[in-house]
Amino acid sequence: MPQILIVNATIVTMDSHRRVFEGGSLLICGDRLAAVGAGTPEKRPEMEIIDALGKIIIPGLINTHVHTSQQLGRGLADDVPLLTWLHERIWPYESNMTEEDSYVSTLLCGIEQIRSGVMAFAEPGGQHVNGMGRAVRELGLPGILVRSTMDCGAGLPPQMVEATDEALSIQENDLRRWHGQAEGRIRVWFGLRTIFNNSDELITRAKSLADRYGVGIHMHVAEVKEEVEFAQQTRGHTTVEHLEHLGVLDKNLLAVHTVWLTDHEIELFALRKVKVSHNPASAMRVLGFARVPEMIAAGIPVSIGTDGGPSNNRMSLVDEMWLTPLIHKGRTLDPTVMPAQTVLEMATVNGARCLLWEDEIGSLEPGKKADLVIINPRTANMLPLHDPIANLVSAMKTENIESVMVDGRWLMQDGAILTINEEEIYHEAEARAAAIRKRAGITLPPRFRML
Amino acid sequence: MPQILIVNATIVTMDSHRRVFEGGSLLICGDRLAAVGAGTPEKRPEMEIIDALGKIIIPGLINTHVHTSQQLGRGLADDVPLLTWLHERIWPYESNMTEEDSYVSTLLCGIEQIRSGVMAFAEPGGQHVNGMGRAVRELGLPGILVRSTMDCGAGLPPQMVEATDEALSIQENDLRRWHGQAEGRIRVWFGLRTIFNNSDELITRAKSLADRYGVGIHMHVAEVKEEVEFAQQTRGHTTVEHLEHLGVLDKNLLAVHTVWLTDHEIELFALRKVKVSHNPASAMRVLGFARVPEMIAAGIPVSIGTDGGPSNNRMSLVDEMWLTPLIHKGRTLDPTVMPAQTVLEMATVNGARCLLWEDEIGSLEPGKKADLVIINPRTANMLPLHDPIANLVSAMKTENIESVMVDGRWLMQDGAILTINEEEIYHEAEARAAAIRKRAGITLPPRFRML
Repeated sequence: MPQILIVNATIVTMDSHRRVFEGGSLLICGDRLAAVGAGTPEKRPEMEIIDALGKIIIPGLINTHVHTSQQLGRGLADDVPLLTWLHERIWPYESNMTEEDSYVSTLLCGIEQIRSGVMAFAEPGGQHVNGMGRAVRELGLPGILVRSTMDCGAGLPPQMVEATDEALSIQENDLRRWHGQAEGRIRVWFGLRTIFNNSDELITRAKSLADRYGVGIHMHVAEVKEEVEFAQQTRGHTTVEHLEHLGVLDKNLLAVHTVWLTDHEIELFALRKVKVSHNPASAMRVLGFARVPEMIAAGIPVSIGTDGGPSNNRMSLVDEMWLTPLIHKGRTLDPTVMPAQTVLEMATVNGARCLLWEDEIGSLEPGKKADLVIINPRTANMLPLHDPIANLVSAMKTENIESVMVDGRWLMQDGAILTINEEEIYHEAEARAAAIRKRAGITLPPRFRML
Repeated sequence: MPQILIVNATIVTMDSHRRVFEGGSLLICGDRLAAVGAGTPEKRPEMEIIDALGKIIIPGLINTHVHTSQQLGRGLADDVPLLTWLHERIWPYESNMTEEDSYVSTLLCGIEQIRSGVMAFAEPGGQHVNGMGRAVRELGLPGILVRSTMDCGAGLPPQMVEATDEALSIQENDLRRWHGQAEGRIRVWFGLRTIFNNSDELITRAKSLADRYGVGIHMHVAEVKEEVEFAQQTRGHTTVEHLEHLGVLDKNLLAVHTVWLTDHEIELFALRKVKVSHNPASAMRVLGFARVPEMIAAGIPVSIGTDGGPSNNRMSLVDEMWLTPLIHKGRTLDPTVMPAQTVLEMATVNGARCLLWEDEIGSLEPGKKADLVIINPRTANMLPLHDPIANLVSAMKTENIESVMVDGRWLMQDGAILTINEEEIYHEAEARAAAIRKRAGITLPPRFRML
């Protein structure tokens, strides 16, 4: 079994004691961490030794909401109203994607994930789990995949509407085919798009299936004000109250955005152990300011997601970490809200809890998977290091992410992606993005005078 | 005179017609642009030819508010209340800096500026204009320097308080020594810190001197709610009303932050042609959400600034461009607010107007200075380019900034800073940052368990 010993690093473990080892070392055996601690253990001939003097090592970051299939649609819907965004840009785009498009989109998104220090992500659903699964397998990046499923709703392109039975059986087939693949790096959950587009039957049957298979449900919840109003009109309750009545508020629900929660709904989330993915940039762009400090105070595990290419448009957890405290300090006008250590918890251990994967990922501890990021802080944007933990959140940028290891294997080392050929994917992504746009008949008004 | 011809680029001119040339070329003669347009002019033997196929060229970005002297204080005051920030961290830190510290701090900040595509900045005042001036000269980066001046106010360290006469005469001496130096790249203005720390006599005499020398005034205005209340208590008016009564609201006032403006004050700003620097990250972190869309609608030239190292903590105009629309879309819940083209105007032509320098910088036009940025968009975080102008704002990151030219000279080319030795400065900056903190007696509580 290959052994790698990394020495002389500042190691931010994110373990339950929140220990930081200065001049610490990490021993990796196969795909697991064998030792993490101060000082250097005995070096043996079979070990590959890596000197990380001056570097900071953190657990791999976890992106709990990223539409990998929307990566080729980045920039397709900037500065437009929400209904234009959905009906005239995103749905036409998504409904014109092939499995191969989804595969390339996920590869492109995966490169951006790795370059931003991400070691696992949750995908809320494109149409082609096969395309996503193939890409995730090649990238070497763990991912939780779901299929986007809609069995009702206004304005949907006909090819996106499915009967409830069909929608569920396709998801079950995807799960049987992909769950546990790629040495366990691929997991499959059930996906619910929004209450606008999911019947109560679909919601409750998806919950039964998720429980039966022991997996989670990934759903956009209380995303926009109009959604809560829609639920009240059609179901007689808010989205969250209705999910509670349907028995879906539970420890295996990953609720995304959750911008419009009442105090009572926050209590309900805490009681039912619901998981939350907060997407700061996407929320600011169109949804509103989620009540994250209140959710954290209630004990809800809140993690961070980037959302999709046309919603943010940076798919970088490093940038979302910078933004997370800013949005909530600004909203509450309290600069002590959401300190750096809380943000780092959201991006690591809370992310792992939200993915129902905390037994293996999210912190650097013996026995867990060897998933880590090596950071080079010696750049003009990160020095000096008066408060290194603060700088990881408020100053670090993606260019400080030097190497990313997943399951004991380098996905990126010294800035080079090792698992796939980036240039080939850029070329393919540009051609496919243009072709999808053409098929979907999307034209964008020019912003300046193009000559 | 050296001639450089750049061909095959997408050139976003930001000229008054807002023209974009695809497959365009730029001819640089000495420090000026000689031609900008579609197609390729005749190549001559004396020209250096640069093929920029696949690249995007924009005018150099302008950072209208950056405390270069606070760069060594990055991370010194994260997550603390405003008064702790000022009285226990920033003032002790600043008052313990030497001229040499200020020089190194400005060099470190300058590298971060260049790496984020900035070609000119306005510094709101450290204590040592000589240190800043030397650094700016070596960097080759144009800057407007002022001295931070305070002649009254509670909680100030004694070494920072000066008599009004002394404060003004030091500023005048700085101006005589540095204004117009470095082939005109250095300009010196008058600085007013805030109404908390400036007497009315200082304010009005600074205005007279600025008018006499034909330069501007850089001042923090209506920054926090408490400031407006303080002005009302001590002067009987809000800060802005009081500046109007003193005759200081004028076309040569660069007012920074301006978070707490009434409708009437926005009208006053427009009437008096006051310039505004908006600092999104810093505002979110502690000040509040400025009414930027309203100011722009009133015709006020609003530009973008990063603020200082302990306020943001990224000194990157590229990241502030990403943040600017997000903050205002989120505040107004209107995704059409602050479209990408407006943000790009803020960071270029509006920046030039705010620096009273629009005759020479801010757009790519024959006769203006040859100040430009070459962007490589072929990365996982910026492709595809459905809407290239949108991507410059919503997806571009500092790693896409490939080369920066100022006055016809490369400050950075293909990612390498050419004017100074980065490694030497990092080393010096770390040592000096630690020494200042020690002299100032600042200790930071640990965030995790350090072992």
